[in-house]
Amino acid sequence: MATLCRPAIAVPEHIITMEQTLDLARETHHGHPQRDLVLRLIRNTGVRTRHLVRPIEETLRHPGFELRNQVYEAEAKSRVPDVVRQALAHAGTEPDEIDLIVYVSCTGFMMPSLTAWLINTMGFRAETRQLPIAQLGCAAGGAAINRAHDFCRAYPGSNVLIVSCEFCSLCYQPTDIGVGSLLSNGLFGDAISAAVVRGEGGTGMSLERNGSHLVPDTEDWISYAVRDTGFHFLLDKRVPGTMEMLAPVLKDIVDLHGWTVPTMDFFIIHAGGPRILDDLCHYLDLPMEMFRYSRATLTERGNIASSVVFDALARLFDDGGAAPSAQGMIAGFGPGITAEVAVGSWTHHDPAAGPDRELAELELTTGVALSG
Amino acid sequence: MATLCRPAIAVPEHIITMEQTLDLARETHHGHPQRDLVLRLIRNTGVRTRHLVRPIEETLRHPGFELRNQVYEAEAKSRVPDVVRQALAHAGTEPDEIDLIVYVSCTGFMMPSLTAWLINTMGFRAETRQLPIAQLGCAAGGAAINRAHDFCRAYPGSNVLIVSCEFCSLCYQPTDIGVGSLLSNGLFGDAISAAVVRGEGGTGMSLERNGSHLVPDTEDWISYAVRDTGFHFLLDKRVPGTMEMLAPVLKDIVDLHGWTVPTMDFFIIHAGGPRILDDLCHYLDLPMEMFRYSRATLTERGNIASSVVFDALARLFDDGGAAPSAQGMIAGFGPGITAEVAVGSWTHHDPAAGPDRELAELELTTGVALSG
Repeated sequence: MATLCRPAIAVPEHIITMEQTLDLARETHHGHPQRDLVLRLIRNTGVRTRHLVRPIEETLRHPGFELRNQVYEAEAKSRVPDVVRQALAHAGTEPDEIDLIVYVSCTGFMMPSLTAWLINTMGFRAETRQLPIAQLGCAAGGAAINRAHDFCRAYPGSNVLIVSCEFCSLCYQPTDIGVGSLLSNGLFGDAISAAVVRGEGGTGMSLERNGSHLVPDTEDWISYAVRDTGFHFLLDKRVPGTMEMLAPVLKDIVDLHGWTVPTMDFFIIHAGGPRILDDLCHYLDLPMEMFRYSRATLTERGNIASSVVFDALARLFDDGGAAPSAQGMIAGFGPGITAEVAVGSWTHHDPAAGPDRELAELELTTGVALSG
Repeated sequence: MATLCRPAIAVPEHIITMEQTLDLARETHHGHPQRDLVLRLIRNTGVRTRHLVRPIEETLRHPGFELRNQVYEAEAKSRVPDVVRQALAHAGTEPDEIDLIVYVSCTGFMMPSLTAWLINTMGFRAETRQLPIAQLGCAAGGAAINRAHDFCRAYPGSNVLIVSCEFCSLCYQPTDIGVGSLLSNGLFGDAISAAVVRGEGGTGMSLERNGSHLVPDTEDWISYAVRDTGFHFLLDKRVPGTMEMLAPVLKDIVDLHGWTVPTMDFFIIHAGGPRILDDLCHYLDLPMEMFRYSRATLTERGNIASSVVFDALARLFDDGGAAPSAQGMIAGFGPGITAEVAVGSWTHHDPAAGPDRELAELELTTGVALSG
């Protein structure tokens, strides 16, 4: 058994509102033939606020790929540890109980990845496995959960720490003025998240099945152009239409599990943009309310890449969690176009089964669980 | 059970000899205060030939990170499929029998990674899991084997394709003239490799245990500086001394498995440089002969990063393979400094156990196996 425990989330202190975004777009792209379309598209995202790792005036300047990466590393090192500590505490785990760290981030590049620094500075064991993933973009949140699930299947009783660190604002490219780029500039936000998948115990989503799907021949719909100025995010206008192709895939995975979509209890869906959520509701024939956590993430924080699914899941926990045995799905979507899907049931840690040292945390987690 | 089958290897057609490397170093770094030291270090590597993805005169020019990455992508797409087809044939698997593709490469960056293109163009199923790893450097070969092993433990009977694509020459940085950089310029080579880990059947190394180890506080000993000009490989002079720290780790993993290093039969070790092999022989108290496959890879192809372990393993296969139940180790080393270690026994596919359709391939693989 593998239980995805309560995620910890942090967003940076610099905030940009939709109005500020629209003002900036108006000002910067005065005379752009498609400026009004862009303004409409940004307004339609419904993204009210986003958080940025650096002040907006600094974000808008491009100091070069090298300096951007230095900012990425410095900010990651200053912001990730607190989030990791909180995720470990949520799960009732200590650093030396972690067997694998999955680190997902597509907005900066380090080799060695942050996993080595985390192990060296936070008390993880030297034999902790490291799995850094940089190339699955927004789907990496789902992929991290699924690879953590696989690892706990392979080694029952082991624990996996997932860390997602996404500073999308550090990929802002002022010279990219296509409609897709300008929309992205109004859509993406920064966030750090972490969560523990416990092999035994823990309250949260018990991971029961996972699946991946590549939508054929859509490699260039979401991609990076790698240039001297860094990663240039390319977003094709056909992307929002992908849900028509992916909805049957999600249904198939649920069917294979012996469940049915309409009777499921919670959905944690990658909020890539508003139409992804709208269309998926439509094609899965679900009420909008079912995607409320994903929608709230999008509205308050924008598309925070691989962190979206953790932010949305944290909101479900904040809401009291789900009822025991409630059936749920997590789905991440990203470049490929790749979907990474997990299905499982809500589980509450049974205090009687836990060792003494967990009792203090259990009083907290069962409090949460019972209110779900 | 998971069996690492015979790897397929390809090296590009452009060759540079040690003499050419020395001539180039003499010419380019005329007047460099440590030129003679560099020449001696390059000579000591014992690397006689290396293969380059582009002609040497083109390799020496730096056309910018963007163009470098375009070359990476084009060369990967033109060279990887044949190697993949050969690895699949070696293992007697078809593309639609592969459940996970682990793609490791630290010498170019694509998002989506090559996994998406491979799935789209080579007949893999849309639900094939994708695991691209870019940030484990030379250790990624060992890591790929170990994560494939984990996956087969989690899903018995599944098959994993590993692809390693390393065009180290595309990370050549003409402005880096420190001793570590100049030595690296004479050490690294290009190669593509692939291998299938079969969940059932297959002749090769049956993966029984794996482990990872991070040498504390050595993050900056092997690393990339990410600059506007791309990845700049930084090699600290303390790296060759790492084996004193890692030899006990390898011993511990073997002990944990109930074996002893001196009685083991084969060793496939990352040939990062000559002293790594010399020192590890010394600290493990093994005869030089035990590392002959790794040494041959280093001599004929240089350090081909994450492909080293596959190239060395392919040489063991070329040599007739090992005896049934022979005990072996694979160890990759890379940034972190991270070691990824696998131990297992040589296994021969039993024709009686396989389904009919495998008989044709079995005639080939048992031929190889019986001569081992």
